[in-house]
Amino acid sequence: MNYSANFSPRVSDSEIFESIKKEKQDIGYYNLPFQDTTLIKEYAQTVKQKDIAIIGIGGSTLGTFAIYSFLTRTHNFDKKLYFFESTDPIDINTRLERLDLDNTLFIVISKSGTTIETISVFKYLYSKVKIDKNNCLIITETDSKLNDFAQSNDIKTFEIPKNVGGRFSVFSTVGLVPLAIVGIDIDRLLDGAKEAYSEYFEQEALYKRIMTKARFMAEYKHKFNNNVVFSYASELEGFNKWYVQLWGESLGKIDKDNTHQGLTPIGLLGPVDQHSFLQLIIQGKRDKTVTFIKIKDFADNSKIPDVKLKGLEELDYINNLKFSELINHQADATIEAVHDLQDIPCDTITMDKVDGFSLAKLMYVYELLTSIVGKFLFINAYDQPGVESGKIILKEKLKKKK
Amino acid sequence: MNYSANFSPRVSDSEIFESIKKEKQDIGYYNLPFQDTTLIKEYAQTVKQKDIAIIGIGGSTLGTFAIYSFLTRTHNFDKKLYFFESTDPIDINTRLERLDLDNTLFIVISKSGTTIETISVFKYLYSKVKIDKNNCLIITETDSKLNDFAQSNDIKTFEIPKNVGGRFSVFSTVGLVPLAIVGIDIDRLLDGAKEAYSEYFEQEALYKRIMTKARFMAEYKHKFNNNVVFSYASELEGFNKWYVQLWGESLGKIDKDNTHQGLTPIGLLGPVDQHSFLQLIIQGKRDKTVTFIKIKDFADNSKIPDVKLKGLEELDYINNLKFSELINHQADATIEAVHDLQDIPCDTITMDKVDGFSLAKLMYVYELLTSIVGKFLFINAYDQPGVESGKIILKEKLKKKK
Repeated sequence: MNYSANFSPRVSDSEIFESIKKEKQDIGYYNLPFQDTTLIKEYAQTVKQKDIAIIGIGGSTLGTFAIYSFLTRTHNFDKKLYFFESTDPIDINTRLERLDLDNTLFIVISKSGTTIETISVFKYLYSKVKIDKNNCLIITETDSKLNDFAQSNDIKTFEIPKNVGGRFSVFSTVGLVPLAIVGIDIDRLLDGAKEAYSEYFEQEALYKRIMTKARFMAEYKHKFNNNVVFSYASELEGFNKWYVQLWGESLGKIDKDNTHQGLTPIGLLGPVDQHSFLQLIIQGKRDKTVTFIKIKDFADNSKIPDVKLKGLEELDYINNLKFSELINHQADATIEAVHDLQDIPCDTITMDKVDGFSLAKLMYVYELLTSIVGKFLFINAYDQPGVESGKIILKEKLKKKK
Repeated sequence: MNYSANFSPRVSDSEIFESIKKEKQDIGYYNLPFQDTTLIKEYAQTVKQKDIAIIGIGGSTLGTFAIYSFLTRTHNFDKKLYFFESTDPIDINTRLERLDLDNTLFIVISKSGTTIETISVFKYLYSKVKIDKNNCLIITETDSKLNDFAQSNDIKTFEIPKNVGGRFSVFSTVGLVPLAIVGIDIDRLLDGAKEAYSEYFEQEALYKRIMTKARFMAEYKHKFNNNVVFSYASELEGFNKWYVQLWGESLGKIDKDNTHQGLTPIGLLGPVDQHSFLQLIIQGKRDKTVTFIKIKDFADNSKIPDVKLKGLEELDYINNLKFSELINHQADATIEAVHDLQDIPCDTITMDKVDGFSLAKLMYVYELLTSIVGKFLFINAYDQPGVESGKIILKEKLKKKK
C-alpha cells in the first residue's frame, strides 16, 4: 500500500511566525518603516504648487487617501490633494474643475507604468495644460515604460521598489512622497508602523493578538466568510476603503491545492451604519466577524447644548454631552449588543487619537494580519492573477475597435 | 399517527405575486409613484435659501443623497444640499464650515421624531444660529414628538406616511421635498418609478426578470450569501450606499421559523474596484452573485487625446477613444471575464442615461426586488427590530452618566 498526500496539515503559531520572519527577506513592505526619508523630505520642500493632483488607481492612491482624509479635517495643511482614479468622464471633469491648473503639481503613480486608467487620464490632463518637469513628478518602478517617459523628459522620479506590492505600498514612496508634500510628518507615520513592527516581531502584546485573530479568521473561514470593520469616525472612511482592497485582493486567491479561498471585507461607519447595516449583523445569518474601531480622544469639545425644545423634552438627557462622548457611547452600546448575542465573533481596537502615528500603526497591524491570514490559508497574499483575464479581454476589445 | 409541520413549503411565482399585490394595501411605498406632488412643488418654489442642510440619518437621507449625488455633477442646480448624518464632532464641524448659516434652510427629517443623532445635531445647529419658521422645515410622522415641536413653533411640516418605512421612503416627502427644492423634476422621478411599477405589476418584461432573480437569491442564499452591485459610474456611489441599507436592513431578519436569514449587500464602483475587490470575485470563494450596472449614454464627449508620449507608445491604441466608451469597455471586459468562469451568477443592468427617470426606475426595481426576496425568505422586510437592543443600552448608559 502506497500513501501520498497533498493536503495541508494544521500549522502551529511558531511555524507561521518563522515563515513570516523568513518572508521579510523577499517581501518589501515589512522593512519600509526603517527607510531613510531624507530625500523625500528634501524634495517635498521644493514643491511650490498648492494643488497636488495624484493620477493613479488602487494601491497607488488608497493608502495615501486613507491617511490624508483622516488628517485633513483636523490639521491645517497648506496644500491640497486631488485624486484622479476613474475613467468616468463626469468624474474626471468634475475633479478637473476644482484644480487651479497653473498652480498644480501632477504626480503620476503606476508601479507597472502602463495602468490604462492612469495613462488615459494623464494624457487627458496633458492636453489641457502644459505638463513638463516643472509641474510633474513620476513614481514608478525603475525599469517601467513610465520611467522611460520621465527620463526622456527630464522629469523627477521616485522609485517604487520591485518587491513592494501596490496594496502594501502606503509606507513606500507611493504614500510618503505626496503626504510629505502636503506637510504631513512622514517620520511620525513610520514611527507608528515601527511600533507595530516591534510589538509583533519582538513577540510583545501584538504578537498573540494578531496570531489568535488570524488563526480564527482562517479556521472559521467557511462559517464566517465576511469580515466587517465597523469604524466609529467619519474620518476613517478612507481607511475602510484601503482595508477592503488590502484584505480582498490579498486573500481572494486560488490556494496551492487549487481551491478558491477568500474572506470578504466590509467597511462600515458608525453611527451612520447603525441605521443601515447593523440590522443585518444583529439578526441576519451568522456569517460575519466584526471588528469595531474607536477613537479614544477626538480632541474636540463640541457638545450638545443645554437646549430644551418643546415636545422633545424626553431627549433632554443628552444635553451637555460632548459629541466625542456620544459617538463612543454609541459604539460601546453597539459592541455590547453584539457581544450579548454570543454567537458573533467580535473585537475592538481603540486608537489613541486622530494623528498619523495612530493610523499608521493601525495600518501596519492590518498589513501584518493580512500576511498572516494568507499564510494560514496557504495562498500567495502578494499577487493578483485573477484580474489579468479582464485586462486581456479589454485590450482585445479596444484594439479590434481601431 | 399524527403529523404536523411548521416548515415553509416552496411557493410558486404566482403565489408570491398575489401576496405582493395584497401587500400593496398595507405597505405604503408601492403606491408613492401615484401621489399628487402639487403641494411639494408649491412649497419648493417659496424657498429662498441657497444652502439646504438636511439633518437626518439612514432612510431619512440615503435615497435623497443617491439621487442628488447622481445628478448634481451634470445638472446646474441653483441650490446645494448638505447632509448632517453623523455624531462625529469633526464631521459635524467640517460640514458646518461649508454652510452660509444665514442663507441656509434647515430640514429636520426623522420618522419617529426622536432619532438621537438627528436631535443632537439639530440642537447643536440651533445653538449656532437662530432657527425658526423662517429657515426650518420638518418632515416627520403626524403624531411624533418632532411634530409637536414644529406645531409649537409654527414651523412648516411635511408628513411621512405611517406605512412607509425609512429605507423605502425616497419617493415620499422624505426624498421629494429636498429634491424639489434643489430644482430636480420630481414628477420625472415618479415617472421612472411608475414605469417600473407597471412593467412589474402588469407582468411585462420586468415581472419575469425580477421573479427569477428573487427566487435565485432566496434559493441559493446559503451558497451565494453575498450580493455585489458593481456600478460602472462614480455618480452611482450614493445609489450603492442606498442599496446596501435597503438590502441589508430589509433582508437581515429572523424568519417565521426562528432562523437567522440574511443576504449581504456589497456596493462596488468600476473601474476603481477592478483594482481593489475584483481579484476576490474572480479567484475567491464562490459565495457571491454580481450585478453589473452600466450607463449607456454619459452625454459626455471627453476623449483620450491623440497624444504620443515617448516610452509609452504601446498604449497609443487608446488614443482618440471617448472616456464614456472606455469605461463601458472596461465594464464589458470585466463582465465577460466573470461570465467566462461560469460559476459566478451575474446579471447586467444598463441604464439609459444620467437622468432622474433612469435612476428612479432602477431604485423602484430594487425596492420591488427586495420586497419579493423578503417574501421568498418568509420574513418581514419592513421592520428592523434588531437594532433596538443597542438603543436601549445606549439610553441606559447616557442616563446613568447624568
